[in-house]
Amino acid sequence: MQPSAEQLHAQTQAQLGELYEALDSGTFKQVRRMLNGLTPVKIAHLLESSPPQTRRALWRLVDREIEGEVLQELSDDVQSQFLRHMDTQEVVEITEGMDTDDIADILQQLPDQVIQEVLSAMSDQDRRRVESVLTYAEDTAGGLMNTDTITVRPRLTLDVVLRYLRRHDEIPESTDSLIVVNRQDEFLGLLPLGKLLTTDPGVTVREIMDTEAEAIPATLADSEVASLFERHDWVSAPVVDAGGKLLGRITIDDVVDVIREDADHSLMSLAGLDEEEDTFAPLMRTTPRRAIWLGVNLITAIIASAVINIFEETIDKVVALAILMPIVASMGGVAGSQTLTVVIRGMALGQIGRNNLRWLLSREFSAGMINGLLWALVMGVVVSVWFEDYTIAVIIAAAMVINILTAALAGALLPVLLKSVKVDPALAGGVALTTVTDVVGFLAFLGLATYFYA
Amino acid sequence: MQPSAEQLHAQTQAQLGELYEALDSGTFKQVRRMLNGLTPVKIAHLLESSPPQTRRALWRLVDREIEGEVLQELSDDVQSQFLRHMDTQEVVEITEGMDTDDIADILQQLPDQVIQEVLSAMSDQDRRRVESVLTYAEDTAGGLMNTDTITVRPRLTLDVVLRYLRRHDEIPESTDSLIVVNRQDEFLGLLPLGKLLTTDPGVTVREIMDTEAEAIPATLADSEVASLFERHDWVSAPVVDAGGKLLGRITIDDVVDVIREDADHSLMSLAGLDEEEDTFAPLMRTTPRRAIWLGVNLITAIIASAVINIFEETIDKVVALAILMPIVASMGGVAGSQTLTVVIRGMALGQIGRNNLRWLLSREFSAGMINGLLWALVMGVVVSVWFEDYTIAVIIAAAMVINILTAALAGALLPVLLKSVKVDPALAGGVALTTVTDVVGFLAFLGLATYFYA
Repeated sequence: MQPSAEQLHAQTQAQLGELYEALDSGTFKQVRRMLNGLTPVKIAHLLESSPPQTRRALWRLVDREIEGEVLQELSDDVQSQFLRHMDTQEVVEITEGMDTDDIADILQQLPDQVIQEVLSAMSDQDRRRVESVLTYAEDTAGGLMNTDTITVRPRLTLDVVLRYLRRHDEIPESTDSLIVVNRQDEFLGLLPLGKLLTTDPGVTVREIMDTEAEAIPATLADSEVASLFERHDWVSAPVVDAGGKLLGRITIDDVVDVIREDADHSLMSLAGLDEEEDTFAPLMRTTPRRAIWLGVNLITAIIASAVINIFEETIDKVVALAILMPIVASMGGVAGSQTLTVVIRGMALGQIGRNNLRWLLSREFSAGMINGLLWALVMGVVVSVWFEDYTIAVIIAAAMVINILTAALAGALLPVLLKSVKVDPALAGGVALTTVTDVVGFLAFLGLATYFYA
Repeated sequence: MQPSAEQLHAQTQAQLGELYEALDSGTFKQVRRMLNGLTPVKIAHLLESSPPQTRRALWRLVDREIEGEVLQELSDDVQSQFLRHMDTQEVVEITEGMDTDDIADILQQLPDQVIQEVLSAMSDQDRRRVESVLTYAEDTAGGLMNTDTITVRPRLTLDVVLRYLRRHDEIPESTDSLIVVNRQDEFLGLLPLGKLLTTDPGVTVREIMDTEAEAIPATLADSEVASLFERHDWVSAPVVDAGGKLLGRITIDDVVDVIREDADHSLMSLAGLDEEEDTFAPLMRTTPRRAIWLGVNLITAIIASAVINIFEETIDKVVALAILMPIVASMGGVAGSQTLTVVIRGMALGQIGRNNLRWLLSREFSAGMINGLLWALVMGVVVSVWFEDYTIAVIIAAAMVINILTAALAGALLPVLLKSVKVDPALAGGVALTTVTDVVGFLAFLGLATYFYA
């Protein structure tokens, strides 16, 4: 019986608590026994949930035989922290028996010289396989693929196929189809296991194979691979080179990681962070990344202040303006970030383009108009009661409408513009938007005030 | 050959362009032919990429026979827009031949009376199956499951199992294992197809079945189901009731949707939006949701202004304070949102708890101290050059350090506190944090200024 979400979370924390206590009291034997009694998946989760020092201490106590399995389950960022301290021999031992795509993943994080050494320590067949995966960038179909395919020829009868399979000790995980190829290893179609099991054994592969099945080109981007899997509910899919020759296959478990990372990308990028960021990254690793982001923000904040500076005299006359101006900027910022978030997600889902952008803009404009008028009215009433000054109430209401409308348009257009100049909208969109809403907010509010009070 | 990401996106837009043009010119026959020549998955994507009016026009031109398939592929928000205009008979027709979990999904969006009518129009067996799924909430294992399991008894030989399978026309999609049950339908273990195909046919199921395989309790939360699938690389898993009786199975394609939604949840919630939000939601549907969020933000912005109001006299004396104060608040906001994002994602991954919170707080404090001092120094220099006033330079530098440190601690603690009082940290975290960084930023800066200039 599985525990509930809260129980699972409590279990993780209880296990961490026990392990840390045993570590602190120096009873390493006990830690080792506790740790290695768990599944590799669980061990990886506990390692990822630990601060750097404890993480290293625990890692040293993981049994040699399961080190490789645990390593595979870790995120790239954490993997590389351990790999940095291994020598070539250790890497060779740890990668033995791993899937080719997992070996390639690990090698890609090592210096070139170590990669060559590890490759030369492998068997010829394994080396060729890993090299074929390494040819492709990590974020393409080729980099995601595995070379553990089971292929059959079209002229065989199912009976022969069944006897052929029985000669295997096991078939690779997530195999839902055998791959049909010709003598030149060119992809012809798929033979789903379901069909193999429900069809008369006298029939040939050619008669029942699925020739409509699509093969994925090795150079396709991983996010596009994920969207194909999602749309077609695939469990695995064959990968081919430009000439249609079978190179390997991609399985859903690797695709799930891509989906998770892609979805995290927008969230993390909006805060100037990398989606691979380790929650427990050491101080010296996370601080520089964040410093850059704070620096970029400081520049935009100074620009906004320079705008306020233009209206120094007006503020000097009416100090209430200084009190109220952050409200105008803040409301624009929130309205804009709502639009920005919807548009960034829509773009990630491939929904937004020239045919529907105009409709989207007009909806955002209308939503901005309605909500702008609504809250401008409320704010106008609040201000006229608070400051007993109708002029300033009218000014703030007008500035709020102007800024919320600008924010809605900027929130929809900025990501599209950024993408057209090949800048990641999730990364740059938030900062660009804040600059616009701050500048326009202060300009509108203080500009109108200068006009009325000058 | 598959097209690349850009080509796929361009293809979608080209298809939309052609369809819209044909719609505009009123050549519905042509639209119908073009549309129904596409796969249901593609049609669903085009519908989701269309504004409401066009979406409805296109939907009316989808062939009856594939309406159901297209409907299944749509997100809940879009599904319900179409379902609202259907009568009971149409719903009955459209759900024929669908998987039970998909039927349950659709029914859950209809009024109770319609659900009863649709259920009573079904065959006894189908109704019982759908009702068993409807018993469980949509966001639990029971709500995700399908009832199309293939079960076998442990005493059978594999040869008998193979002959039994051959009596089926097809086996359900994403079947990677047969489920082994006893006479009382209680779950005993799994028989992976890979093992079935590679083992001697004379062996019995009992001898080779996987009894370590875990079954999922029907009441487990869907996000927990997703994390089990992710950790164990499952393709499908059996679902049981509290007594261990087999109810159905969950397949990876449904889990992928949960993973996508969970990952989107943090992103959308931080902007006060729902993760199911339709990109092309009609104006009257999206405006109220956003209005509430703007209203909440207005209250926090007014609180910040009230803080500034306390220091009215000081600002009246030194107008430069009004010019510089947004910088202090803004830098705190950015530093805090970086911490908040890391912590919210860490919590979603189940990594953060009492054992590591202290380490996390101390790292965030140190990172805040380093980055705070760095940018405070830079800002101090900028201000002393800009305003030729060393006092204000020292004041802003000190206020920035105070606010960035506060932001780091608040960003780490607020989500944990909110969760402990059962408030969604992704939804409330951003607003709560901005309130803290605005209030502390203005208090520190203007408070220090009052002390020095009074």
